[in-house]
Amino acid sequence: MINVGVIGYGYWGPNLVRNFAETDGTRLAAVCDARAERLALVEKRYPGTKTFRSWQEMVQDPSIDLVAVSTPVSTHFDMGMAALRAGKHLLVEKPMAMNVDQCARMVDEAARRNRVLMVDHTFVYTPAVRKMHELVSDGSLGDIYYYDSVRINLGLFQHDVNVIWDLAVHDLAIMDFVMPERPVAVSATGISHVPGGNENIGYLTMFFNSKMIAHVHVNWLAPVKVRSTLLGGSRKMVVYDDLEPSEKIKIYDRGITVNPDTSADKVYKLMVGYRSGDMWAPRLDTAEALGVEIRHLVDCIEHGTRPITGGEAGMEVVRILENGTRSMKEQGQPIELAAAGKVTA
Amino acid sequence: MINVGVIGYGYWGPNLVRNFAETDGTRLAAVCDARAERLALVEKRYPGTKTFRSWQEMVQDPSIDLVAVSTPVSTHFDMGMAALRAGKHLLVEKPMAMNVDQCARMVDEAARRNRVLMVDHTFVYTPAVRKMHELVSDGSLGDIYYYDSVRINLGLFQHDVNVIWDLAVHDLAIMDFVMPERPVAVSATGISHVPGGNENIGYLTMFFNSKMIAHVHVNWLAPVKVRSTLLGGSRKMVVYDDLEPSEKIKIYDRGITVNPDTSADKVYKLMVGYRSGDMWAPRLDTAEALGVEIRHLVDCIEHGTRPITGGEAGMEVVRILENGTRSMKEQGQPIELAAAGKVTA
Amino acid sequence: MINVGVIGYGYWGPNLVRNFAETDGTRLAAVCDARAERLALVEKRYPGTKTFRSWQEMVQDPSIDLVAVSTPVSTHFDMGMAALRAGKHLLVEKPMAMNVDQCARMVDEAARRNRVLMVDHTFVYTPAVRKMHELVSDGSLGDIYYYDSVRINLGLFQHDVNVIWDLAVHDLAIMDFVMPERPVAVSATGISHVPGGNENIGYLTMFFNSKMIAHVHVNWLAPVKVRSTLLGGSRKMVVYDDLEPSEKIKIYDRGITVNPDTSADKVYKLMVGYRSGDMWAPRLDTAEALGVEIRHLVDCIEHGTRPITGGEAGMEVVRILENGTRSMKEQGQPIELAAAGKVTA
Amino acid sequence: MINVGVIGYGYWGPNLVRNFAETDGTRLAAVCDARAERLALVEKRYPGTKTFRSWQEMVQDPSIDLVAVSTPVSTHFDMGMAALRAGKHLLVEKPMAMNVDQCARMVDEAARRNRVLMVDHTFVYTPAVRKMHELVSDGSLGDIYYYDSVRINLGLFQHDVNVIWDLAVHDLAIMDFVMPERPVAVSATGISHVPGGNENIGYLTMFFNSKMIAHVHVNWLAPVKVRSTLLGGSRKMVVYDDLEPSEKIKIYDRGITVNPDTSADKVYKLMVGYRSGDMWAPRLDTAEALGVEIRHLVDCIEHGTRPITGGEAGMEVVRILENGTRSMKEQGQPIELAAAGKVTA
Repeated sequence: MINVGVIGYGYWGPNLVRNFAETDGTRLAAVCDARAERLALVEKRYPGTKTFRSWQEMVQDPSIDLVAVSTPVSTHFDMGMAALRAGKHLLVEKPMAMNVDQCARMVDEAARRNRVLMVDHTFVYTPAVRKMHELVSDGSLGDIYYYDSVRINLGLFQHDVNVIWDLAVHDLAIMDFVMPERPVAVSATGISHVPGGNENIGYLTMFFNSKMIAHVHVNWLAPVKVRSTLLGGSRKMVVYDDLEPSEKIKIYDRGITVNPDTSADKVYKLMVGYRSGDMWAPRLDTAEALGVEIRHLVDCIEHGTRPITGGEAGMEVVRILENGTRSMKEQGQPIELAAAGKVTA
Repeated sequence: MINVGVIGYGYWGPNLVRNFAETDGTRLAAVCDARAERLALVEKRYPGTKTFRSWQEMVQDPSIDLVAVSTPVSTHFDMGMAALRAGKHLLVEKPMAMNVDQCARMVDEAARRNRVLMVDHTFVYTPAVRKMHELVSDGSLGDIYYYDSVRINLGLFQHDVNVIWDLAVHDLAIMDFVMPERPVAVSATGISHVPGGNENIGYLTMFFNSKMIAHVHVNWLAPVKVRSTLLGGSRKMVVYDDLEPSEKIKIYDRGITVNPDTSADKVYKLMVGYRSGDMWAPRLDTAEALGVEIRHLVDCIEHGTRPITGGEAGMEVVRILENGTRSMKEQGQPIELAAAGKVTA
Repeated sequence: MINVGVIGYGYWGPNLVRNFAETDGTRLAAVCDARAERLALVEKRYPGTKTFRSWQEMVQDPSIDLVAVSTPVSTHFDMGMAALRAGKHLLVEKPMAMNVDQCARMVDEAARRNRVLMVDHTFVYTPAVRKMHELVSDGSLGDIYYYDSVRINLGLFQHDVNVIWDLAVHDLAIMDFVMPERPVAVSATGISHVPGGNENIGYLTMFFNSKMIAHVHVNWLAPVKVRSTLLGGSRKMVVYDDLEPSEKIKIYDRGITVNPDTSADKVYKLMVGYRSGDMWAPRLDTAEALGVEIRHLVDCIEHGTRPITGGEAGMEVVRILENGTRSMKEQGQPIELAAAGKVTA
Repeated sequence: MINVGVIGYGYWGPNLVRNFAETDGTRLAAVCDARAERLALVEKRYPGTKTFRSWQEMVQDPSIDLVAVSTPVSTHFDMGMAALRAGKHLLVEKPMAMNVDQCARMVDEAARRNRVLMVDHTFVYTPAVRKMHELVSDGSLGDIYYYDSVRINLGLFQHDVNVIWDLAVHDLAIMDFVMPERPVAVSATGISHVPGGNENIGYLTMFFNSKMIAHVHVNWLAPVKVRSTLLGGSRKMVVYDDLEPSEKIKIYDRGITVNPDTSADKVYKLMVGYRSGDMWAPRLDTAEALGVEIRHLVDCIEHGTRPITGGEAGMEVVRILENGTRSMKEQGQPIELAAAGKVTA
């Protein structure tokens, strides 16, 4: 049984707390929040759970095996490092930290102390994203051509990070899991409509060594909510609409056939053939992603294995966010990513 | 009565021909196409219309007052200049020509000879786009924050131009009419999936002197057709979906209120207020855009006035396409547009 | 403070229990369920709440002021009557009881003992239905022409009632609140696809003294979920789609104008004019319906007033269900309803 | 080559005329319309075509082989009989005639004279309906459980027939082709909102000897346009949305499994199992239905075979319309259809 202490009982924290309380293999041992009224809620709903106002105290509690950090991103590094140094396993909200350097130090610390470090890239554990991973991995889609995502709504303007850290992070986490390669360069554009504020609209293009491209459009100031992703391949193409109650994943047998063996005198037009076939929406599991994720975390701790969304994945996501933000300040100036090369499980 | 000769009876030409034949004030005098079987069709449907295999001959026909050019973009300059030099008025398909220099020479020629030069930016004459123009002009939307458009489908791969010349041109024409300013810089990214082919996916960001941004996403290799535009303002926001049979324009009373007078000790979060009100879909006219456009063209010729979509508008659109394509070759490198400054009617 | 005892902790009971626990003015005093494992859940989530295996015992508990019955419809009469006879106020799930006679006896019992009797017609307390009520009441829609509803999905086949008792009951409750009159006759058709089972598809037409019609289509065996209602009026028409996350209510300025003063020689066609104007989606509250309902219940108990969804409304709904089921057995044979005449608040 | 004369150049006539002019095997010989301005249009678009003001004259023209009648339903019988008596083949708009008696006499006349009589049930020749027919015929759907259709919009109020003759006729024609049996009884309800007018809202339930049901909802006074059909089977279920630009047909692997061998002590609930699997949208042809239909007509005339939508199909559709209208006057009173028994090709 893994005893868990959760730091942060704000927007997402209650979901972590509920899942740790209900999942076999974990026990909700403690919750920490600086705000007394939040702890009062915890005490009402989870009598018998220890509560802390100070995270520094909680991470020293010897009865705790795993610390889960669900606080603003600017606090992740300090809290996460303290937990690791205290010998705890660590689950940290995404984005993992404020920059690649912080991430690298957390990865090192976990490795040195032989602790499991997982980043809460929740979408990776949804049935829809797992299905996309499967379709890429088993070759159903053929060569991957592009990933294109729109993630917009009238959203809460964050004050410590811009919109790509808040919303594009989901797509970067999904891409890290689904795409066959990691990007090697990024070009981003964006704008802030609040004086002195962070960018509230962002467009992020990623380049790869192969003939792929990825693009993410995020916006806190849109009149409608959209969560829509296209994943184009040479054999099939996927539309993933996360707002659909069922049929989140639709697979289209559509595309082009390029004739590679064309003699010089044939005109270009003849080289491309068009294919428009059936569409298919596979039935998806209905398991809650966070429950799947926590069972995977338990498994990693028990067997000493590396999580799908470990510290390295978290670091690669932050690498794109960090460089994307730099590119954004320079109106799309492309920036090379010191690519780490994808480590396939 | 204006006698019209149309060059090109391919995909779009038949629409021009039909509208010139039916609109009061114009008479379909001649059609030119290099392909005999296309001319045979014309003769069957429009008996009594002259037909030409050679456009050089047709533009010299003294009975013709106006030449309409509906051929691949690489031919627009030669045909258009010949028509103007022969003293004809000119309607030319979009994009106007292959580069800004060609456009400028066509504009000069028309001015010198006192002929009307119109570019067929058809969308500008649709009820939906005219409504957006009205909402911007009368202040209903407040300050404009952004224009964002997605225009994708499984489309015919063009062989003389890339996807932004084929699809983004529609948005640039709409923006030239609707937006209160013209862009001053562009950053574009894209990719070709056909060896030796033009880019079939493109992302185009445009920057302005004011706090606005514009983005257009075009794709010939998408599994689904999307024609969706967001126009965000400080007072209201518009969703324009051209595939909706009715309710193409939806106006949302949603947005943020930024408190400009904030004392230093208030936290940033408090500066932004959120507003989520009604949605409203105004009834739109059902007039065919091309008919409206041709009546406007007749009016310009009769009164010697400048068309809404004249040579200058066509040139500004080509300026963005030309520089966007350059930026695309350099992975998003931003390029300044030698901005011409918007001439308001 | 009203002390509440809830009978039945199955599908809907937990929502009642949570709302009684959280609403000001009520206190969750006791929960009853025949199944030990359900009571164990209650004890874990609501420590300090009394639990009962026997409802007969619970309704005799002197500390309880209000009994809420959330069990299969065939048990409502016995439990409800026992609670009223024990001097409790009563909230009973819909449909209120198995037939009009049972309903009438419950209404009488409550009146004699001066207790509040409310039927849990939850939809009546949703922001969308309240908006429809407002639009009818204030004349925005003009004369009401029709109510048409589709409520289908792949649903659990109930074993004590047919599909109209399970699904059409929602529409009958909404109509009782929204429509300006009560129906005077019913014709229903339906079918069972399970040997010996109740009808799993049903179509219910209701007739009125005025020129109105209402129709409800319900189905437990549909491949997709639909919750869509049309409310047509002479001035405006409403589309209510309960599955829309926002914009549940859309108001269309569409319809016909009938020219009443037509001389004999005018052809019929000229009598009807068509109107196609704007659409408008008003912003709706986001309050949870059950919370609104329970605050209304508290108010009725405290002030001795009659609930919007009192015993009489519940009885009229059951009258239609009972006679509709009879008509269904006779392939649509119309049946007059001994109409009670609408009592307007 | 079959020489065709078309009576009626109103709303639908131009589609017939264009298709007869373009289809191999037919030649547009003549068009008849009482209105001179309509004939002027024909002469402009189809020079060389004979025109008639009098249909009586046209049906006597010896150069004509086939007469197509596209006029109000009340005229079909007189025109159709005259054409048959003059020895012509006949294509008649739907509904075939005003009552079953007229239909029967037309069928007899065609049989006696050995002429082909086809009713223009256009939907039967669409790719979507042909796919549904295929799915029923090859057993993909299993036993058919129900057909349910909604066909509503703000439509032109007809003056000689009510809304079921105008709109439900499409569904009855589709059902006659797709369903494995013909209905044996009908119950219909409806209302007119125009003084002295025909019913503008109609609900039609049809009963079968097997455990099937069919229902059609039609409305001329709806704020939105809907064309949506459900076809439920024991193995699969279809949603057919005719307004979808692509994916008109979606096939759901959803339903129930009824356990037939249940011992007496098992509760009813256990007898029903639920199945929720994949959805699949097959690619459909894009051929124009009317072209397919006319090629079929040519084939029937050339080979002396019976059309899929012959006079008998037309008569069975009218039988339901005629009895449905009677039922409607009696608030849903069920009426038995003197069922003709389906003749399978």
